[in-house]
Amino acid sequence: MLSIEKYQNEFIDYLKAYSIRKEPQNLYKPIDYILSLGGKRLRPVLTLMSTDIFNGDYKKALDAALSIEVFHNFSLVHDDIMDDAPLRRGEQTVHEKWDINTGILSGDAMLIMAYQLFENYEPKTFRELAKLFSKTALEVCEGQQYDVDFETRNNVTIPEYLKMIEYKTAVLVGAAMKMGAIVASASEADQHNIYEFGRNLGIAFQLQDDYLDAFGNPKTFGKQVGGDIIENKKTYLYLKTLEFGNDTERERLEHLYIADTADAEEKIVAVKGLFTSTGAAQATKTAVEDYTTKAFSVLDTLNISNDRKQILKEFGIGLMGRKV
Amino acid sequence: MLSIEKYQNEFIDYLKAYSIRKEPQNLYKPIDYILSLGGKRLRPVLTLMSTDIFNGDYKKALDAALSIEVFHNFSLVHDDIMDDAPLRRGEQTVHEKWDINTGILSGDAMLIMAYQLFENYEPKTFRELAKLFSKTALEVCEGQQYDVDFETRNNVTIPEYLKMIEYKTAVLVGAAMKMGAIVASASEADQHNIYEFGRNLGIAFQLQDDYLDAFGNPKTFGKQVGGDIIENKKTYLYLKTLEFGNDTERERLEHLYIADTADAEEKIVAVKGLFTSTGAAQATKTAVEDYTTKAFSVLDTLNISNDRKQILKEFGIGLMGRKV
Repeated sequence: MLSIEKYQNEFIDYLKAYSIRKEPQNLYKPIDYILSLGGKRLRPVLTLMSTDIFNGDYKKALDAALSIEVFHNFSLVHDDIMDDAPLRRGEQTVHEKWDINTGILSGDAMLIMAYQLFENYEPKTFRELAKLFSKTALEVCEGQQYDVDFETRNNVTIPEYLKMIEYKTAVLVGAAMKMGAIVASASEADQHNIYEFGRNLGIAFQLQDDYLDAFGNPKTFGKQVGGDIIENKKTYLYLKTLEFGNDTERERLEHLYIADTADAEEKIVAVKGLFTSTGAAQATKTAVEDYTTKAFSVLDTLNISNDRKQILKEFGIGLMGRKV
Repeated sequence: MLSIEKYQNEFIDYLKAYSIRKEPQNLYKPIDYILSLGGKRLRPVLTLMSTDIFNGDYKKALDAALSIEVFHNFSLVHDDIMDDAPLRRGEQTVHEKWDINTGILSGDAMLIMAYQLFENYEPKTFRELAKLFSKTALEVCEGQQYDVDFETRNNVTIPEYLKMIEYKTAVLVGAAMKMGAIVASASEADQHNIYEFGRNLGIAFQLQDDYLDAFGNPKTFGKQVGGDIIENKKTYLYLKTLEFGNDTERERLEHLYIADTADAEEKIVAVKGLFTSTGAAQATKTAVEDYTTKAFSVLDTLNISNDRKQILKEFGIGLMGRKV
């Protein structure tokens, strides 16, 4: 039991059976398309795992897990429109393959369908799941709005940035795990703590993403190394450089982000130099470790056997251990 | 009791207290804006009225009524993006006042907020309301998709058209009333029947809208008379003309809809001539009457006093009596 691969396979089978061939096709085909593009299915796996950890029948969590995955893909469809992104997981985005209106409307339908997936649960469980879902979904919207706002602001603080990544990414990881605990009828304390485990791990993961985008191994990091720098993204590394740097370093970084540098490689090298020399790179690594440690320390408070705490810890280490 | 104006005033007060001054402002300001633009607040009034009719405390239905109104406005925000509409109720649409991304994201938040408004109800009521809401909301999305699909199709049938207006408009009227019945703990039969009353009245209302758009009194009809004809909309009148007309009339109508007529007035007169000569205008009037009669006949089945049936009937007559 408790094998990630087992949850993954079980979930993928469930997802396949869910795939909808309903009318009107122009509404439902894009939904099938985005849901079948793949991905690690990390969030739904966490829901199933959490139910199992708390002695529930993880198969009963399949609907909640699917709800999380449908919501996650809804947010990708709408975010991709807002970011004008042509590709998602190496394939055309929905609004690119169809059009913007299709992306909006199919996304709306997915958000509703995510709620419908709670309908097989008992009224009390239904309300708990739906409440957590609504709170989380609204936070994800707020996180996306902060992200948009930050693009045109020059005075974003570190706490603001942390709140943004927490809302945009981490709360959904926490909610995925808490839903598993709700389905397993875990105690309120356990529900709260597993949420905190997921939320802190989610923040650590996102901060690590910022770090690896600049300092990751091009062979193992999934995306283009230096992508954030080329796009002038105000990541944790960037904000910490502004915080730690002297006037010259700050001005140099801001100039590099404003100027249209012809040579991208040169810009990446220069920016990374500043990230390192100011101590921002090290501070980011430390923040990743801090949030990971925070997540692991929550595990001690859970009302489960040490074996199971170890499984969650190993999962966390596996997730964070992609530094290679 | 049972005065429309009372419900309206009560609802507007409740809406005002709801208005959100939350962060991030760029997400919530557009929501306040669209919710404060006004309108007849017909749907929420129906929810309150329905609770009252079934001997419930209508104040307990305020959250459900607000949910319906928030959802309705969500659909307006997203539809206005899709239709590229610059104005809504005489004011700028959200995507026009802000931008498309704001319209998408604020709309998403509203859809979630509509669900949150059920959270004060007991678990059983919560699930019933949320289930009805999800079913209805998905149908509204499907109706919108059919409407989009029909624009580029030349073989739309009358049953398809009726399904489209039912989904896009009428089911929300039915759901608004059924929610009132759910809050009042009315019997399942009463819940079903009040839904049917609203649904049939909604279809009648929409068909009458098609009719009045061509044959209404310019002084009392809210919109520009002939607007559908200028926009080449395939309304019930249009589809019935294709059904009833001979080859010459069909060709003439299709030609008028394809050709770029310089003189809009001339086109309106010619199209209206065809609507009348083929009997399509009369058939539309008959359809309006049929659906209204259907709605009223459902009233007989309700488990309420005759006085209250009369109130619902008078409300229906008032709603449909705007032919002047």
